[in-house]
Amino acid sequence: MDEAGAALRHARASRGTTLDRLVTLLQFPTVSADPRRAGDMRACAAWLAGLLCHAGLTGVTVWPGRIAPVVTARSHGRPGRPTVLVYGHYDVQPVAPRAAWATDPFRPVQIGPHLHARGASDDKGQFMAHLAAIESYLATSGRLPVNLTLVLDGEEEVGSPTLVAAVARRWPPLAADLALVSDTWMLAPDHPVLITGLRGTLGARLEVTGPARDLHAGAFGGAVANPAEALAALVASLHDKAGRIAVTGFYDQVRPMTDAERGHLARAGPSDASMLAPAAVAGHGEPGFSAFERVTRRPSLVTTNLRTSGAGRTVVPAWAAADLSVRLVAGQQPARISALLRRHLRARPPAGVRARLHVQGRCPPYNLSERAPVARAARAACRTVFGREPTMLPSGGSIPFVSAYAAAYGRDVALLGFGLPGDAIHAPNERFYLPNLFRGTEACIELYRRLGAG
Amino acid sequence: MDEAGAALRHARASRGTTLDRLVTLLQFPTVSADPRRAGDMRACAAWLAGLLCHAGLTGVTVWPGRIAPVVTARSHGRPGRPTVLVYGHYDVQPVAPRAAWATDPFRPVQIGPHLHARGASDDKGQFMAHLAAIESYLATSGRLPVNLTLVLDGEEEVGSPTLVAAVARRWPPLAADLALVSDTWMLAPDHPVLITGLRGTLGARLEVTGPARDLHAGAFGGAVANPAEALAALVASLHDKAGRIAVTGFYDQVRPMTDAERGHLARAGPSDASMLAPAAVAGHGEPGFSAFERVTRRPSLVTTNLRTSGAGRTVVPAWAAADLSVRLVAGQQPARISALLRRHLRARPPAGVRARLHVQGRCPPYNLSERAPVARAARAACRTVFGREPTMLPSGGSIPFVSAYAAAYGRDVALLGFGLPGDAIHAPNERFYLPNLFRGTEACIELYRRLGAG
Repeated sequence: MDEAGAALRHARASRGTTLDRLVTLLQFPTVSADPRRAGDMRACAAWLAGLLCHAGLTGVTVWPGRIAPVVTARSHGRPGRPTVLVYGHYDVQPVAPRAAWATDPFRPVQIGPHLHARGASDDKGQFMAHLAAIESYLATSGRLPVNLTLVLDGEEEVGSPTLVAAVARRWPPLAADLALVSDTWMLAPDHPVLITGLRGTLGARLEVTGPARDLHAGAFGGAVANPAEALAALVASLHDKAGRIAVTGFYDQVRPMTDAERGHLARAGPSDASMLAPAAVAGHGEPGFSAFERVTRRPSLVTTNLRTSGAGRTVVPAWAAADLSVRLVAGQQPARISALLRRHLRARPPAGVRARLHVQGRCPPYNLSERAPVARAARAACRTVFGREPTMLPSGGSIPFVSAYAAAYGRDVALLGFGLPGDAIHAPNERFYLPNLFRGTEACIELYRRLGAG
Repeated sequence: MDEAGAALRHARASRGTTLDRLVTLLQFPTVSADPRRAGDMRACAAWLAGLLCHAGLTGVTVWPGRIAPVVTARSHGRPGRPTVLVYGHYDVQPVAPRAAWATDPFRPVQIGPHLHARGASDDKGQFMAHLAAIESYLATSGRLPVNLTLVLDGEEEVGSPTLVAAVARRWPPLAADLALVSDTWMLAPDHPVLITGLRGTLGARLEVTGPARDLHAGAFGGAVANPAEALAALVASLHDKAGRIAVTGFYDQVRPMTDAERGHLARAGPSDASMLAPAAVAGHGEPGFSAFERVTRRPSLVTTNLRTSGAGRTVVPAWAAADLSVRLVAGQQPARISALLRRHLRARPPAGVRARLHVQGRCPPYNLSERAPVARAARAACRTVFGREPTMLPSGGSIPFVSAYAAAYGRDVALLGFGLPGDAIHAPNERFYLPNLFRGTEACIELYRRLGAG
């Protein structure tokens, strides 16, 4: 009996255990953006370490991180075969607005084929497929078809500062021949996608400060500059009316799409209607591009929130701030874009107040060659498990570790995800389609086998 | 011995009691904007009712209000003499940001001559001067020099919805020949001010709604309209670069100032430097006017806050909102200004999202004739108590009850306040200059006497 076949049978017999573990994992409220969750982050990392030991991995280590621990483990028993780094993240997005959740975000509930909980799809459910595949090999053959290094990040939703810094100094435990990540989506339950690109990111806070304290709006209104209004004017200056980014030079380095690429995206990618219908919103953005092109092959600049001091009192607020999330595509350098943004703001100094841009995190865009060996292996694995080739598509999202890893080590990263478009990641009522947990496990078993076979 | 003289001696002998009562009153956290304080509002109203009964007023009643109770009482023992309505408010502004307070806002602390607490100056300390004056008369002569109706509002900081509605239907307990309010400021401890005008207000919430839920900024950024950015553009459209309100027709009904009025404001009002120095902010606003003119005789439109859904997550927020506080001057009608604002917004429909203006409260501007009998009485009382005439000046603030009362009943309202410019009302570390509590009491005793003498 071949090792992959034994692992597959073990995985199928262990589905109940795999689901139980995911339900436990989802009960840790691992919101990395919330400092009050630091203890929960450590508890979850410790629980994961125990699970990895139990699965038979070696060198299980919980590394202190800047915000939350990184958990690593390995199974390096195949000299001469490639070393594969598998990356996942156990931290999750905040749950607010809590009132919009139909169920408790940290008490997983199965409704029909879906498991509802924060992090169910992004990314606990997806990396659980890898853990089940790993355990199935080790429990049946005592070894994996490849040398595998597992990295579980606790800071992905806050820019992965610990791992990005570790990559920059080429931290030895991360050395590998290629990397695998399941933190993306499929077009439908039977329709896998191999991601050919991620957008880069530049996160920044734009802050306007004015009076030393909030001022009574009657006593001072009309006589002093208002940070809220100055911020609004600066935010408004970042786009033109049509939806194009109005920062001079912003698009200069963007690599134009070929006609072939546009044709492929139009045929294989989601239509505007299918992308936008779940959000119940009309499309709007850079003229001349489809919604899918806009979020994958064109850069964007999103004001993710606005806030002021004053807390609802009738005042001229002392300060106002906006968070900006810039997404970058092939050709764009985060440092150059941040310089262009600063130049744009310097050219528009608001009267009577002070505006400052605090750049908080950046990662370059990532692109995978369709001819990379890992892409060939992923396509073959999908043919076996899903009965079809994965569609090759770019993603609009960003995974800081992936971009940093590919840039620092020059290694390919295959992004083969098990989420679905309706999973509501980063939103209330996040869920995961449970058949994808088991199909994902089988895809991992087959993919490891193909990578080991070279 | 004359009745006023006896009241004065009683007031001077009772300073300790008056201060003790103010300290107790300031311990009620009567934040009318906070629904969780509803019980505290009722408790404070009940405590005040007890104090008014103890002082010898009759008809003491706690009326249920829309948000908080209204407390009324009277002493109508002088047939043939005028009936004077004395208005004060026991609700206070919220305390946020709590961390900016050097002391607990609801545990009054005396530091030098100042009593520090939320509401110490606005308005608990100021109306306590009236209560002390009333009790001093009743304790010594058993009657006041006038027929007095006392109204203590619990909703002033949220637009006085209960009393404004009561005034609109000419609620009988409010019938009076004139009204007195101490909820304003002096130029210095020995320099009283009789307020000649209050600005009107128009409060509104500008709300922009877009997608049905917050959307992942990577998956949707660039392809959908962003409510935060649309709101910023609308807020930015409300002023031109120089600081003038850019709503067409906004200034059309404003009565131009005469040269004489401008000269008086320049001589008697605060200079730009003295107004703006405490706020540590440069002046900015409608060109061609001093800071004091801008906040008293010119209208203003202040964005008091900006907020979005998303709570710090990396999303395109589903909604964004701004609160607007418009201040109106003589000649401007709130209804007309709200129509102009709506027209302005309708002419700028943001692409792909929906903008709505919710008008939340409005009151007309108020102006007092310098020749009104109550103005003469107030000037005479100030000569006696402060040794000088009050300076006649407009205020930039608004007191909804005052404007509504004057408009509905056609009665004069004298605003003679005991606050000081450094009191930090509506801000952290609010305080009240205690000598003004006692001098204010004496001013009330003398003013009641003058009004009774006709």
